[in-house]
Amino acid sequence: MIIDVHGHYTTAPKALEEWRNRQIAGIKDPSVMPKVSELKISDDELRESIESNQLKKMKERGSDLTVFSPRASFMAHHIGDFQVSSTWAGICNELCYRVSQLFPDNFIGVAMLPQSPGVDPKTCIPELEKCIKEYGFVGINLNPDPSGGHWTSPPLSDRHWYPIYEKMVELDIPAMIHVSTSCNACFHTTGAHYLNADTTAFMQCLTSDLFKDFPTLKFLIPHGGGAVPYHWGRFRGLAQEMKKPLLKDHLLNNIFFDTCVYHQPGIDLLTGVIPIDNILFASEMIGAVRGIDPETGFYYDDTKRYIEAAKLTPEQRHQIYEGNARRVFPRLDAALKAQGK
Amino acid sequence: MIIDVHGHYTTAPKALEEWRNRQIAGIKDPSVMPKVSELKISDDELRESIESNQLKKMKERGSDLTVFSPRASFMAHHIGDFQVSSTWAGICNELCYRVSQLFPDNFIGVAMLPQSPGVDPKTCIPELEKCIKEYGFVGINLNPDPSGGHWTSPPLSDRHWYPIYEKMVELDIPAMIHVSTSCNACFHTTGAHYLNADTTAFMQCLTSDLFKDFPTLKFLIPHGGGAVPYHWGRFRGLAQEMKKPLLKDHLLNNIFFDTCVYHQPGIDLLTGVIPIDNILFASEMIGAVRGIDPETGFYYDDTKRYIEAAKLTPEQRHQIYEGNARRVFPRLDAALKAQGK
Repeated sequence: MIIDVHGHYTTAPKALEEWRNRQIAGIKDPSVMPKVSELKISDDELRESIESNQLKKMKERGSDLTVFSPRASFMAHHIGDFQVSSTWAGICNELCYRVSQLFPDNFIGVAMLPQSPGVDPKTCIPELEKCIKEYGFVGINLNPDPSGGHWTSPPLSDRHWYPIYEKMVELDIPAMIHVSTSCNACFHTTGAHYLNADTTAFMQCLTSDLFKDFPTLKFLIPHGGGAVPYHWGRFRGLAQEMKKPLLKDHLLNNIFFDTCVYHQPGIDLLTGVIPIDNILFASEMIGAVRGIDPETGFYYDDTKRYIEAAKLTPEQRHQIYEGNARRVFPRLDAALKAQGK
Repeated sequence: MIIDVHGHYTTAPKALEEWRNRQIAGIKDPSVMPKVSELKISDDELRESIESNQLKKMKERGSDLTVFSPRASFMAHHIGDFQVSSTWAGICNELCYRVSQLFPDNFIGVAMLPQSPGVDPKTCIPELEKCIKEYGFVGINLNPDPSGGHWTSPPLSDRHWYPIYEKMVELDIPAMIHVSTSCNACFHTTGAHYLNADTTAFMQCLTSDLFKDFPTLKFLIPHGGGAVPYHWGRFRGLAQEMKKPLLKDHLLNNIFFDTCVYHQPGIDLLTGVIPIDNILFASEMIGAVRGIDPETGFYYDDTKRYIEAAKLTPEQRHQIYEGNARRVFPRLDAALKAQGK
């Protein structure tokens, strides 16, 4: 079984974006603020948007199940206040829930949170609990920079974030640490901000003792861990100078990397440097990079091809494709077992 | 001949830091602002600080010449105003000049600029010209984020920076794109901010047509290019979606990477993915990572060992060690030729 732990609903029907644009207009002019009930997307539209996109590619490429969350770049937590984020997160999560109900064998949900810059993260807990308990979601996406590229929140090691962590531990769910659109002109969203955030989050954990306070907390760092595996020697050396334990003891019981690295040499480095137990298969399909690589003739984000070509034993490949996902997402494992898988 | 293109004066005599601390105190209380003439460092002190540190390690490891600039983390352009930065840059550059005079076979200078957040970069030109024309420096370090982690300046592709580029082209010098200390608690300076800036700078160039305006402009991206080579497929794919030319045509006549990557798999990826003509030997010794790697028994930043072990022909190794540096730093080549090298 092949589980892709990083998929976003990037292909939602146009009505969603139109509603969002009206909501954004409504921030300035409350008289045009749309009601949630004004967004109408039928099951047929949802089905069509998935069958002709993600599900089609999953079948072509040979993956079985996608851990599915709202479109990351559309979270845009920097827009509006908590109420705006809350309404928007509720809508986006519900759509992912409906997709998971329409395609229970192929999609299972992960929640976006109604974060808002400067607002206490504990305000996210009702939406989080609804998604886990009512929708059967198996994890959350946590944005370490709800300001969208201005980095005005404290580091992930700060007690500011502890209410989220306490709830994660209670519900036994991991968080993918995933930023959203950059509204800072310095940072291209998918080419700089995403990768920078991955590196930044890892280093925030490295310099802190967060996992002493939360020994069972689990973070999934997307996009192959940003710059981290490529600079693994640098990070080992920095930890050593800070008198931290070896990274495998200090961080690798709690931090995991996905395989969203879009060429063979990158995947070879990732699987050669990072312990296999810490690598989870993912493609972020359909996401930031949608084209065909002229050097290979295949889609850049067809990451399964790179895993197949990497020097791995069948057991290691199984861990990356399925075993590690079941361990990092215990509720995913439980849901699969309940389906007899 | 082995040229290390990335060395900072991290071992300057203590008097320098003490003077800087007094300068910082003087920002709030002008009555304690020190005069430049109050900083007294003898040639013997300079000699000692180099002979027992950088030069000792260069001899041990077998490199010949270091392209030497003021300590990057101490530039701290976010502190004070232009006048503060200007005085500080003048002092730091002069020390590197004196080192280059004391050890003309082993050190040649690169200038820090007196950047200051919100100040027009053209104010840096007098210091830049002095360093190149009077001190015989061969390049500059350009900080894309003088705010120190708040990223308040426009991207490098913005006309804001053009006065610097015009002068670089006129004087035929490259710029290493190198940030300084982060004063944003989210970003660890050497573990996150440095690498993020490398990735960010590359992406700013990728999304723009900067090198159409300046076909001969040369940027050296340090720390092995941040996350870029590891995600080379991602960047190729993003450029493709933006209808940009292939990266080798779009950027690689102008952008170069150093080898400050502190483990063998990282160097193997760098040299396997990036054309050899775009890779310049460097160690950033003595810099961010000073310890000995327990996995190898050698210093993390002894990057020559990784280049020696990489699958490269003697010709390729020569390019990385010397040939590319002479091409990217034409004034370095001229200075070497004047020495009969």
